[in-house]
Amino acid sequence: MREIDVAHLDDIARGAGILGTGGGGDPYLGRLLTEVAITRHGPVTLVTVDEVPPDAVVVPVSMLGAPTVGTEKLPNGTELLAALRALERARGAEATHLVPIEIGGMNSLVPLALAAETGLPVVDGDAMGRAFPEAQMVLPTLAGIPTSPMAVADDKGNTLVLDAVSSQWAERIARAVCVTTGCSVYTADTVMTGAQLPGGLVAGTITLAEQLGAAVRTARADHANPVTAIRDLVGGVHLITGKVTDVHRTTTDGFALGTTTVAGTDSELRLSFQNEYLLAMRDGEVVATTPDLICVLETDTGEPITTEALRYGNRVTALAIPCDPRWTTPAGLELVGPRYFGYDCDYQGLPSDG
Amino acid sequence: MREIDVAHLDDIARGAGILGTGGGGDPYLGRLLTEVAITRHGPVTLVTVDEVPPDAVVVPVSMLGAPTVGTEKLPNGTELLAALRALERARGAEATHLVPIEIGGMNSLVPLALAAETGLPVVDGDAMGRAFPEAQMVLPTLAGIPTSPMAVADDKGNTLVLDAVSSQWAERIARAVCVTTGCSVYTADTVMTGAQLPGGLVAGTITLAEQLGAAVRTARADHANPVTAIRDLVGGVHLITGKVTDVHRTTTDGFALGTTTVAGTDSELRLSFQNEYLLAMRDGEVVATTPDLICVLETDTGEPITTEALRYGNRVTALAIPCDPRWTTPAGLELVGPRYFGYDCDYQGLPSDG
Repeated sequence: MREIDVAHLDDIARGAGILGTGGGGDPYLGRLLTEVAITRHGPVTLVTVDEVPPDAVVVPVSMLGAPTVGTEKLPNGTELLAALRALERARGAEATHLVPIEIGGMNSLVPLALAAETGLPVVDGDAMGRAFPEAQMVLPTLAGIPTSPMAVADDKGNTLVLDAVSSQWAERIARAVCVTTGCSVYTADTVMTGAQLPGGLVAGTITLAEQLGAAVRTARADHANPVTAIRDLVGGVHLITGKVTDVHRTTTDGFALGTTTVAGTDSELRLSFQNEYLLAMRDGEVVATTPDLICVLETDTGEPITTEALRYGNRVTALAIPCDPRWTTPAGLELVGPRYFGYDCDYQGLPSDG
Repeated sequence: MREIDVAHLDDIARGAGILGTGGGGDPYLGRLLTEVAITRHGPVTLVTVDEVPPDAVVVPVSMLGAPTVGTEKLPNGTELLAALRALERARGAEATHLVPIEIGGMNSLVPLALAAETGLPVVDGDAMGRAFPEAQMVLPTLAGIPTSPMAVADDKGNTLVLDAVSSQWAERIARAVCVTTGCSVYTADTVMTGAQLPGGLVAGTITLAEQLGAAVRTARADHANPVTAIRDLVGGVHLITGKVTDVHRTTTDGFALGTTTVAGTDSELRLSFQNEYLLAMRDGEVVATTPDLICVLETDTGEPITTEALRYGNRVTALAIPCDPRWTTPAGLELVGPRYFGYDCDYQGLPSDG
């Protein structure tokens, strides 16, 4: 158990941006929301998975939508609490802990903002060990824990509670609501007991994000290579260093969809994304796929670049980092492997050294 | 108070088809659902508005979607009860009465089917005095009674309860859910107390539908003119008698949208519809508009023709029947007048004799 204060947020936001593989929404926005909440209400208690009692009611809260929209359409600040309270009313039980649904950008930070506001502790971990675009793409799905009941709140003040027959249907219905209310809503769903957390979470990822963010910050201050500092912490394969020469991006069906090309000195990397970077091809050959983490970093600073912020001329380094091993099981690959997203290739593990 | 049995359903279904101005879903399907429910569970008690105690909890239940889809995608039979129970849980109060949200096709009959199943009485009336395509287009909106909380259930078993900031937002969100789950869902919403019924309902419309259906049946048996029998009961203006020469119809955004042309001996009538017939132009001149009822009847039999059943070659007579006077107030016309639907004309009352 430890306290998270405003001083920790920069490192957490930067590290969550790296682990978010381009998705999870703008970490800058998440940091601002959390900074305001902590300044107003005081610091947040972060507890480890081991410290959570078995009968705890642990609620993931997050933004759902297209990050391209999220950067322009700001929340009004009441959505997360509205979603949490609607879920509590529907379940007839109050939350005892909050947790990020994903370690990625904004969605790593908004549970901290709501925790400051409500006084609830946050569990150090997340339900993916990275970010993914759809609601059912979480380890709880593999562990048999449903997305429903799912509460959705928008910036207008509309709320709903969904009881879907499957987590895939929860995603489809919530996405339709998201699109019709402006492509950015806030959700509380996939409730876990404390006893379910080992199966449902990757433990320690808020602290890992903070360590990554600190490593980048320190490397910069020491005039060392920040990308090397990241690889020293989490390993990973170097995919390319070069310049973004092309970005195709559309906001479709509530997602940021597209491709980008990074030209290196003697090769070219093409990345495909749906909110997150999902497929990397170098000179026509697949070199990394979902569920491994494909991260795009500013080469000079190690700053992560989200799929909605990517633009022509960015000088970037792309890394591939191994995902949580539960994702590379047959059930995991069925849920989040490249074929689910429509890419005509199988998952291939990363070489031990890139 | 009286009982509705299987023997009453044919007349109610036919009359509701006439008053539904082409919308409300296929009355045949509604009759079958209700026939099965009454055969299995026994007859339904129909009460007048005067017989409802002031503290009664009166719940309208209905199908929401594109009738073009509803005729092919049958309900599984559990949706209405699922919607009602979800609404009751969210409100923490049980329904004491059911009522049709609209007197139109299937939606006049499904409350009777659910009433047979649950043993609840049905109030003789509806919230429009006709059918309209959108959820907020009800007299309760004019009386300040909200659509929310609104429960939605689909054929897959998904349910949700929506608490929207306005009835227009309830419609938009429910429509998005409807489209994504297959364009046909079932809803329970716009709950009224007994005391609110005079402001929220047109009283007696189930009985009126039954009388209309009986008048048409009797006229046929007597070799009399069924269209004349209808006008003898509810008045109305004769718009044209002729042949359907053209139907343009698309299923878009969860509605059946289109236009049709009826060629008479010396003039031509063009009808525009969104689930319901909304605008009639004869030889280029507007002759009837929403919120007045525009009804298309088979000329020989007086059988109503819904917008999704309309086809080339139908021999039809079109009538315009005055709507409930609350719809022609400024607030009523803002909600359901021709300009709301995008037609570039003002509402014009019907002449006293067509």
